[in-house]
Amino acid sequence: MTEIQIAHSVTPKHIREIAATLAIPEEKLEYYGNDKAKLPLDLIDEDKIKENNLILVTAITPTPPGEGKTTTSIGLVDALNLLNKKATVVIREPSLGPVFGIKGGAAGGGWSQVIPMVDINLHFTGDFHAIEKANNLLSALIENNIQSKTRNLGIDPRSVIWKRCMDMNDRGLRNIIAALGGKAGGVPRETGFNITAASEIMAILCLASDLEDLKERCGNIYVGDTWEGKPIFAKDLNAEGAMAVLLKDAIKPNLVQTLEGNPAIIHGGPFANIAQGTNSIVATKMGMSLSDYTITEAGFGSDLGAEKFLNIKCRAAGISPKTIVVVATIRALKYHGGKSLKQITQEDVPALINGLPNLDGHIASLKSFGIPIVVSINTFKSDTAAEIRVVKDHCKTLGIPVALSYGWEKGGKGCLDLAEKVVEAANSCTKQFSATYDLEDPVYVKLNKICQTIYGGDKVILSDLATSQLGKYETMGYGNFPVCMAKTEKSFSDDQKRLGRPEHFNIHIREFEIATGAGFIIPIAGNMLRMPGLPGTPAAERITIDKDGVIEGLF
Amino acid sequence: MTEIQIAHSVTPKHIREIAATLAIPEEKLEYYGNDKAKLPLDLIDEDKIKENNLILVTAITPTPPGEGKTTTSIGLVDALNLLNKKATVVIREPSLGPVFGIKGGAAGGGWSQVIPMVDINLHFTGDFHAIEKANNLLSALIENNIQSKTRNLGIDPRSVIWKRCMDMNDRGLRNIIAALGGKAGGVPRETGFNITAASEIMAILCLASDLEDLKERCGNIYVGDTWEGKPIFAKDLNAEGAMAVLLKDAIKPNLVQTLEGNPAIIHGGPFANIAQGTNSIVATKMGMSLSDYTITEAGFGSDLGAEKFLNIKCRAAGISPKTIVVVATIRALKYHGGKSLKQITQEDVPALINGLPNLDGHIASLKSFGIPIVVSINTFKSDTAAEIRVVKDHCKTLGIPVALSYGWEKGGKGCLDLAEKVVEAANSCTKQFSATYDLEDPVYVKLNKICQTIYGGDKVILSDLATSQLGKYETMGYGNFPVCMAKTEKSFSDDQKRLGRPEHFNIHIREFEIATGAGFIIPIAGNMLRMPGLPGTPAAERITIDKDGVIEGLF
Repeated sequence: MTEIQIAHSVTPKHIREIAATLAIPEEKLEYYGNDKAKLPLDLIDEDKIKENNLILVTAITPTPPGEGKTTTSIGLVDALNLLNKKATVVIREPSLGPVFGIKGGAAGGGWSQVIPMVDINLHFTGDFHAIEKANNLLSALIENNIQSKTRNLGIDPRSVIWKRCMDMNDRGLRNIIAALGGKAGGVPRETGFNITAASEIMAILCLASDLEDLKERCGNIYVGDTWEGKPIFAKDLNAEGAMAVLLKDAIKPNLVQTLEGNPAIIHGGPFANIAQGTNSIVATKMGMSLSDYTITEAGFGSDLGAEKFLNIKCRAAGISPKTIVVVATIRALKYHGGKSLKQITQEDVPALINGLPNLDGHIASLKSFGIPIVVSINTFKSDTAAEIRVVKDHCKTLGIPVALSYGWEKGGKGCLDLAEKVVEAANSCTKQFSATYDLEDPVYVKLNKICQTIYGGDKVILSDLATSQLGKYETMGYGNFPVCMAKTEKSFSDDQKRLGRPEHFNIHIREFEIATGAGFIIPIAGNMLRMPGLPGTPAAERITIDKDGVIEGLF
Repeated sequence: MTEIQIAHSVTPKHIREIAATLAIPEEKLEYYGNDKAKLPLDLIDEDKIKENNLILVTAITPTPPGEGKTTTSIGLVDALNLLNKKATVVIREPSLGPVFGIKGGAAGGGWSQVIPMVDINLHFTGDFHAIEKANNLLSALIENNIQSKTRNLGIDPRSVIWKRCMDMNDRGLRNIIAALGGKAGGVPRETGFNITAASEIMAILCLASDLEDLKERCGNIYVGDTWEGKPIFAKDLNAEGAMAVLLKDAIKPNLVQTLEGNPAIIHGGPFANIAQGTNSIVATKMGMSLSDYTITEAGFGSDLGAEKFLNIKCRAAGISPKTIVVVATIRALKYHGGKSLKQITQEDVPALINGLPNLDGHIASLKSFGIPIVVSINTFKSDTAAEIRVVKDHCKTLGIPVALSYGWEKGGKGCLDLAEKVVEAANSCTKQFSATYDLEDPVYVKLNKICQTIYGGDKVILSDLATSQLGKYETMGYGNFPVCMAKTEKSFSDDQKRLGRPEHFNIHIREFEIATGAGFIIPIAGNMLRMPGLPGTPAAERITIDKDGVIEGLF
């Protein structure tokens, strides 16, 4: 069966039944069809959050198709529910960029999926669209203020750092000259679009504690300077009220279900390479308020999603995971050991052994946080007994519990071993995580601590542009922000060709962006782009729908 | 009470109750909350459509705040239901452009509104967002094809006419240079954005008969030429399937209710000055399938919305109205008679008499279609008895029935006189409308017929650019398309300063756009722009929301 056939083989429960298992009163639900509902923020309960077992799922350095963090997260929540633990999975909303780019849709895989899969991968409940509109309303107000005679704040168009955004892989919008066409068209200037998943509004939505905080953060967005060099914020444009109105529903987490009928909360979708890579604080807190175990994931390898999840999100939210699950695959380890993508389904124990240092690197990074770790081997049919033995033995040597997971093939039943090990590890957790850096550290020190502790690199090197931008932002008083690194997901280093566990490398920061509403500084390493492009033959070309509404090519 | 206080003073019925009055089986409904539902297209019934009384509501040349076509349409449907006629109102979805620009939100007014008003004016059921995404996916695919080595069709970037779109008044996006930033950014070229309400995808959604037709029309979109001059269509990029997937829900009409609990279908939202100005064919047919009277509106004055409603939409759909209601206000007639906007609430019978030729012009235009006409005076508190008498007597002289409407103040009860006159007029209608031009007429002849018959002008003058574009499009075989004029809404002419009923003027066509998927050609008259800008002090600055979710400034 294909992913979509599996998804359609299950009759979804009415979402009110899912809500009932979480003891959510029906009148609290805002239905979007029969299988989706928005949850009001007053369901968040700080007392229950304190008692909850938060489990973070991360991964080794992934191959392009990904190693199955979402599949593992869903399998794990289904398994915990089979063990009569009250568990909810909290994950990110997909972006249309990858859907029409390389990957097609994704919301788990095989028998570990969330449904309704098609809706979740397309417009879902409209959160991304609302974020885009709030972002671009601010852009329109900036453009208009530069042009307006009545409201002109004297913004220097060359200084505007605020970009528009669009949820699309469209390289043509990355760098543009806007406001052409003569006097009526505005004041021409260089600007560009980020993908919505990397926009500051997405970051704000994922970090805000409530609508009021969200509005205040929107007002605090730094957009550029006047001709005299005075900084201008969104609140100077009276933009934050209308932006918050556009986001009033988007801030509410979305309740859906796994194929096995367990609760799944899906909310917010920043990428982990070019943004903070984890779902919203309100969604995570919602999951923690409504159940005893909350399974969440952070994007790409632990050097990206997990680092930001802990140092940015958990620090801001005042929460801490009880266990970190590292998803590894035999295939990816062989890839890191020197096999090409086409060869990784062939047995190759030497390559596998050669690739193990990548897993070691992630374990070493994660150990710095002081939280119990469990390795989950996301199994594939091509894995051999000899290969599996090598990884299990290796973990044993390291003293890390390891489980074989069959979420794709068997759903929750396939993840019972993982679930048991996670429960055991969570019970053993006695403390909060230790952050990689202090907020009071100078930004350059923070960067070096991440580089050394998390990436295993030597030091960070700033370009002249980055040095001057950093000086400006520190002078403006933003030196105590956490950092949200933009770095390739394909390597611990900033060079995507350096697989495995690279050593003796520096991280090169090309430039900084700043998100004063979200409250972090974004160092851009290597040649990372915050608006991706489509591949040579995009997935969109294969996607279609027939007259009966049957969709092909989306998964 | 303010508009929003009135809207909130009524407890909405569950949308299933509204559906029940139309005998829609509950399992056909796709709920969006308790007060909105999407309707599947299989509820359309061509037999019932033949028996339905379709009523078109149009207006005289409006002042900037509008003359109350939507308010009148809603009052009329409520009044018809009070008269025990089974009636549905079918209107357009609002655009965020005006919401954040001059007008704030709008969905009728006073006691003649549709609810939920806030939702309808913000994201509603996401149709505009879906249209934007389908439009911009095609743009990304074009940009990518120009860049791609594997899929390159040899498109000449200078020839690409397809623009991106955004539902925002953002003058900065009207004319841009895209794809800058070196080799990875694509091939730099001049392009721009239209507002979503003017995009071809909006037009296609509003003209398509079903999802299959919509997909085919998307494939037929002409995007530009190869370096050899061969035309390239969206289907050459394999774009139409993914575009249709994005639009699979957007094509379904949305059911909501009036304040008096009568059915309202809201679907599609092209502007009437720069696009075809009326809701979707599927929505109108849906209303006609489910009730005996279907009230619909077409934007701005009859020279724009009504002309296009009849010559484009009704011709394509094979439907014909039984009565046309012309909304006039005493205030607007005084404005056409020479009073400034600030003075029009003062009694001024000479100015009113001076403004009557504007009404005459609209009546004369509409008479050319051969359908019964009723004038509805949308009353305001500032209207005096003497002024009302003048208009009533004038209509009597013309032999046109006239009704005083109090929809804003009294809802349906205020529109009973209008409803009775509409029923009488519809009963007297014995034929289909006569179109202004034949599709076989050369485009230049079509333009002149519209100019003379509808606008009361002398002739159409094409710029050199327009002449060359028209030649190209006729050579390509599109000469038999209907025309969708882009012209100012503020005058019968193309000069917005010429109020009243101007005479001896020519219409100047600056350029043409073509919509080969929608199936019309767009002459752009005067200095019309298909991406508006914000005013000096935008409405967005006044809009906000407090911590309890109470919105201010939206209405």
